[in-house]
Amino acid sequence: MSANTFGKIYRLTSFGESHGVAVGGIIDGCPPNVSLDLELVQKDLDRRRPGQSSITTSRKEYDKIEILSGILNGKTLGTPIAFSVRNKDAKPQDYENLKEVYRPSHADYTYEAKYGIRDHRGGGRQSARETLARVVAGSIAKQVLQQIDVKIIAFTSQVGHISLPSDYHYDSVDQDLIESNIVRCPHADTSQKMIDLIKEVKEAGDSIGGTITGIVYNTPIGIGSPVFDKLHADLGKAMLSINAVKGFDYGSGFQGLSSRGSELNDSFVNEGGIRTTSNNSGGIQGGISNGEEIYFRVAFKPVATIGIDQKTVTKKGDQTNLAAKGRHDPCVLPRAVPIVEAMTAMTILDHVLLSQTTRISQ
Amino acid sequence: MSANTFGKIYRLTSFGESHGVAVGGIIDGCPPNVSLDLELVQKDLDRRRPGQSSITTSRKEYDKIEILSGILNGKTLGTPIAFSVRNKDAKPQDYENLKEVYRPSHADYTYEAKYGIRDHRGGGRQSARETLARVVAGSIAKQVLQQIDVKIIAFTSQVGHISLPSDYHYDSVDQDLIESNIVRCPHADTSQKMIDLIKEVKEAGDSIGGTITGIVYNTPIGIGSPVFDKLHADLGKAMLSINAVKGFDYGSGFQGLSSRGSELNDSFVNEGGIRTTSNNSGGIQGGISNGEEIYFRVAFKPVATIGIDQKTVTKKGDQTNLAAKGRHDPCVLPRAVPIVEAMTAMTILDHVLLSQTTRISQ
Amino acid sequence: MSANTFGKIYRLTSFGESHGVAVGGIIDGCPPNVSLDLELVQKDLDRRRPGQSSITTSRKEYDKIEILSGILNGKTLGTPIAFSVRNKDAKPQDYENLKEVYRPSHADYTYEAKYGIRDHRGGGRQSARETLARVVAGSIAKQVLQQIDVKIIAFTSQVGHISLPSDYHYDSVDQDLIESNIVRCPHADTSQKMIDLIKEVKEAGDSIGGTITGIVYNTPIGIGSPVFDKLHADLGKAMLSINAVKGFDYGSGFQGLSSRGSELNDSFVNEGGIRTTSNNSGGIQGGISNGEEIYFRVAFKPVATIGIDQKTVTKKGDQTNLAAKGRHDPCVLPRAVPIVEAMTAMTILDHVLLSQTTRISQ
Amino acid sequence: MSANTFGKIYRLTSFGESHGVAVGGIIDGCPPNVSLDLELVQKDLDRRRPGQSSITTSRKEYDKIEILSGILNGKTLGTPIAFSVRNKDAKPQDYENLKEVYRPSHADYTYEAKYGIRDHRGGGRQSARETLARVVAGSIAKQVLQQIDVKIIAFTSQVGHISLPSDYHYDSVDQDLIESNIVRCPHADTSQKMIDLIKEVKEAGDSIGGTITGIVYNTPIGIGSPVFDKLHADLGKAMLSINAVKGFDYGSGFQGLSSRGSELNDSFVNEGGIRTTSNNSGGIQGGISNGEEIYFRVAFKPVATIGIDQKTVTKKGDQTNLAAKGRHDPCVLPRAVPIVEAMTAMTILDHVLLSQTTRISQ
Repeated sequence: MSANTFGKIYRLTSFGESHGVAVGGIIDGCPPNVSLDLELVQKDLDRRRPGQSSITTSRKEYDKIEILSGILNGKTLGTPIAFSVRNKDAKPQDYENLKEVYRPSHADYTYEAKYGIRDHRGGGRQSARETLARVVAGSIAKQVLQQIDVKIIAFTSQVGHISLPSDYHYDSVDQDLIESNIVRCPHADTSQKMIDLIKEVKEAGDSIGGTITGIVYNTPIGIGSPVFDKLHADLGKAMLSINAVKGFDYGSGFQGLSSRGSELNDSFVNEGGIRTTSNNSGGIQGGISNGEEIYFRVAFKPVATIGIDQKTVTKKGDQTNLAAKGRHDPCVLPRAVPIVEAMTAMTILDHVLLSQTTRISQ
Repeated sequence: MSANTFGKIYRLTSFGESHGVAVGGIIDGCPPNVSLDLELVQKDLDRRRPGQSSITTSRKEYDKIEILSGILNGKTLGTPIAFSVRNKDAKPQDYENLKEVYRPSHADYTYEAKYGIRDHRGGGRQSARETLARVVAGSIAKQVLQQIDVKIIAFTSQVGHISLPSDYHYDSVDQDLIESNIVRCPHADTSQKMIDLIKEVKEAGDSIGGTITGIVYNTPIGIGSPVFDKLHADLGKAMLSINAVKGFDYGSGFQGLSSRGSELNDSFVNEGGIRTTSNNSGGIQGGISNGEEIYFRVAFKPVATIGIDQKTVTKKGDQTNLAAKGRHDPCVLPRAVPIVEAMTAMTILDHVLLSQTTRISQ
Repeated sequence: MSANTFGKIYRLTSFGESHGVAVGGIIDGCPPNVSLDLELVQKDLDRRRPGQSSITTSRKEYDKIEILSGILNGKTLGTPIAFSVRNKDAKPQDYENLKEVYRPSHADYTYEAKYGIRDHRGGGRQSARETLARVVAGSIAKQVLQQIDVKIIAFTSQVGHISLPSDYHYDSVDQDLIESNIVRCPHADTSQKMIDLIKEVKEAGDSIGGTITGIVYNTPIGIGSPVFDKLHADLGKAMLSINAVKGFDYGSGFQGLSSRGSELNDSFVNEGGIRTTSNNSGGIQGGISNGEEIYFRVAFKPVATIGIDQKTVTKKGDQTNLAAKGRHDPCVLPRAVPIVEAMTAMTILDHVLLSQTTRISQ
Repeated sequence: MSANTFGKIYRLTSFGESHGVAVGGIIDGCPPNVSLDLELVQKDLDRRRPGQSSITTSRKEYDKIEILSGILNGKTLGTPIAFSVRNKDAKPQDYENLKEVYRPSHADYTYEAKYGIRDHRGGGRQSARETLARVVAGSIAKQVLQQIDVKIIAFTSQVGHISLPSDYHYDSVDQDLIESNIVRCPHADTSQKMIDLIKEVKEAGDSIGGTITGIVYNTPIGIGSPVFDKLHADLGKAMLSINAVKGFDYGSGFQGLSSRGSELNDSFVNEGGIRTTSNNSGGIQGGISNGEEIYFRVAFKPVATIGIDQKTVTKKGDQTNLAAKGRHDPCVLPRAVPIVEAMTAMTILDHVLLSQTTRISQ
């Protein structure tokens, strides 16, 4: 139904093709009377934007946001916040050769099969340029969540075979360390290795994937629905809806599969409040937050656009060869960090607001 | 909102506490005029039921389904199909000692935090007994999908550190092989090792997790929504909503992270229809099915209930020790196989029906 | 989508055919820890049940409710409340002659056109027996609303050409007066005239319609969404979803159309709180409650089942004649009063809970 | 939830305050590959726009639509269609005096109660300027519906006490006649009387209401959901969501209440297809279309803004007097005709698309 809408109470409906007039969205259900710092939103957009460093695509979009409604004198009105970002650096002619060809591991073929028509310019609606709207809505969600002291961060935790050290602790990651390097990994040694690997891959005209880790500090206890809309199920769906994502796990995840119950169970202790001595549950039990840190991993495949010759077919079914001419990212992770943050913030805020309907207020 | 409802067009709303009067649900949006074989539904329930083999819990529930509406003379009416299964083997006194204690890595504490009240008998609503309703709705969905030749299977692919051989091929798994052994793994050698491990763990009063793999054969091309409701995002959410699930990946998933784009991209070929030469995309590109097999992994943690002493706290916050007295499964995977099938079937059917709204019929 | 689900937060999903096994539903989103008096629910069912007086159908259904889940020791758990009522007085053979005939102004023809199949026994799913589920869910909603002192009543205000006096005041109607007579009209003279008319119509084998008025006292200020989900729009939809309803208006409604703005505008005054001097707005301004009484009218057509010969066609398209042999009501209004109350209660409770998401709680 | 979203499959999310930057919306779920004539959309906007005749407000907005996405070379892509209309004639200073005052029978007070903040400029979000987005989405829906030959019209049928003749036939109303006069009534004599009355009311600085009748010709048989989402219930909600609407009825409606079942029942006949000899059902039986004309009435109150002195209170609760200085319509009906058409078109298209999910396509 709501193919282009995310969320139940705090809802983003996004629009826009990569090389159309504009990309943007409408945020519905944002609480009123919240003072918004739109420069912080612009800053998050800048963290997502192409051309920001030597390891991202050279497509240059300044991605200047325009707010069309919902804010008066810097405060939210409780009415829909519409926003748009005009597409400026469109070079449709770069993509003319793609009109009749299906790019391997892209959605050209499936879009055409589904709709019988597609905007071939820069991937049209399938382009990750759509995530710009998510970053705006997520950035605003982060500001709303600040009112109840919830803090969300994300960082690159793996690129190809290079991972953070296995004993790396997630309970207090420094945002400044994350932003101190172009790959957005908070561990200096590891980040340098990651950057080197991405440069090597870029040189080869190839691409590489990895994982981003997301963390939520200070989640209120008791948010999340216990059956179908478990908090981690909604987080998982949010992450899997990001372009190029192939997997999601939280807490002990896939990595804990060889351990036994007695090793993974988190004992409760009373430390002036009920806490757990370990956190293999990842802050969520039975789909409901227990107040510990929520942490999860998101697996991104190597981006499909590469500079190397590939076999494919045309719309008519003829065999052909293809090498990307458009600009592309060798590794999507550094730019995807604010997107993971955004989807996390929207999911958490949505569940915080939803949880306010559990009991009737007197 | 729809905390206990799954799906958009084909919708299951489930109800029931583990030791209440009954567990069941209402299926809305089932196509009319479909002949249903209710014995097949009962058979799927039997595959999920406790006490079915030497490696599952000894709680005995015959789980006899009663249909209350929506079917006339063996055919669906297009009206809601309500069904219930009475709880017969309830031994509430077994759980009396749990009234005041929060079991580690269960949802006792979070339920109480959320609702201020909980049914402590056998976990109440948090019990995986709720999944019985999913198996019914999924089993019916499988029968509806048969009309368009879609086939869904699932099997145990990993228990603890024991996995299927890495070169195991998923393109034509034999359902009979899966059901030929009590762990539901289609590879004879591996299944025996898995069973041995589970027995060892059971002996120790402990528990062990693993992965279930799900496969969809013959998915129609073009189902799935391309932005927030990507087909794999909805599959992921469906799986993550199952009790004890900690992770989900599809196609190349987490395992392909060290490969490069040039290795993972799936080339298109025309073989009397557009196909791909490999299937790292897992049958889904840009959130839309491309007609290749859909395959994915679901990670289950070891069940939290173990026979070993654990530290925890009471409702009042006092420290205490706990060893499970209730019956429990050392490994949930064999019984979870029909649940994974069920959630897959509901998700696929829902998207098939949704995709029928894309164009207007003349 | 949610064809058989009503509401967003407080949600009823109903099921059941008139002469199937049972009729019932699942209530999701009911606040936890509310003490429910199930005898009050049964009492509301009794107000709806057939055979209750000389002016209703003689079909006898005791409509004994069974609760299947969601309540423990008389208190709601916050989990789904499932309930069912078995169909006992089913006489399918009474309806055998209707298998091949479309009853005029019933939904036999449209059901068959939509689904290609229908349960002809007593109208199957189209029967107003479905409203039994609404009465249960509404009765529980009324008990939840009592916690915030909201009170809902409904009564018969017009039967055929006989109406309440035009100067009748709605600001404090006595529930006992309503229930003191079988037509459920709080004005003694008028109720007698209504009863006489219904008896006359019954004698003739015919049927008659009228209006029911609904009132909500003490609605919290500020509930209702201001654009598409205006409070009166949701109330209107709720009423129009009841069988046989043909119209809805609120406040000055259709009756105020010949007055001018200067006559209908409600002036604000400060009387230890902002109030209006008149209430032509019907307690709702811009879709949001202003704290004054909400009042509205619901128009019911004469029921389509009559004892008089009518022309119609068979499934095969042959012309035929039909006179009802089944039992029927000459006037549906007395039994519809608790249904109007129920739909009102569900709508108001849903909006009360929804309004708790407007701001973020700190 | 979806406070600013209308529809399930064909969905409009609207945004914008009356004197903010822009008003507009996003249409999701529009079928792909439909050739759109955007001049027809602009024409419908012109029928809604202020200042179009001597009996509407003199506020001049050219309301030039800009399409931001979803259309390529004149064809829909199946992706979201975003559009906006910039607010040009904003005179915020006209409304400075309303910052602290609650206008009688407007939503100033209720907005402030709900959100704790409001945009006082021209009513902000409560302004009927929001309906501009509805007209765009409805106009596009009409073009999509043309593909299956559905035709929708609306006209003014009553102004104050002046109505169309009671024997006026609705089965083939001429759209040109409707547009031939400024009040949009298809009956020449009546339209002149209506215009005279509106001019008289305008002269007096007062306002007047009335009814608009909507008609759908050639609705496919079998659309509409039979229980909560009855076709007429969704039409009713759609109409009641329009500013100033106080009532809705369809078919025999409120006007048939004094007739008996034997008079109102519609006999079936076979005339090369099953038809009814009369149409008191208004084209809908049991919530499902039967192929006959759908017709309904929408009651609009006199607009609340008048030029006559009224008593009210300020935000601080002080008593004050108010006479409108802003421009206003003496009668909203002529401009509301395209809005009624729009909401009808969206509702019908939504149900047409939804009905395509009833059966599974092979």
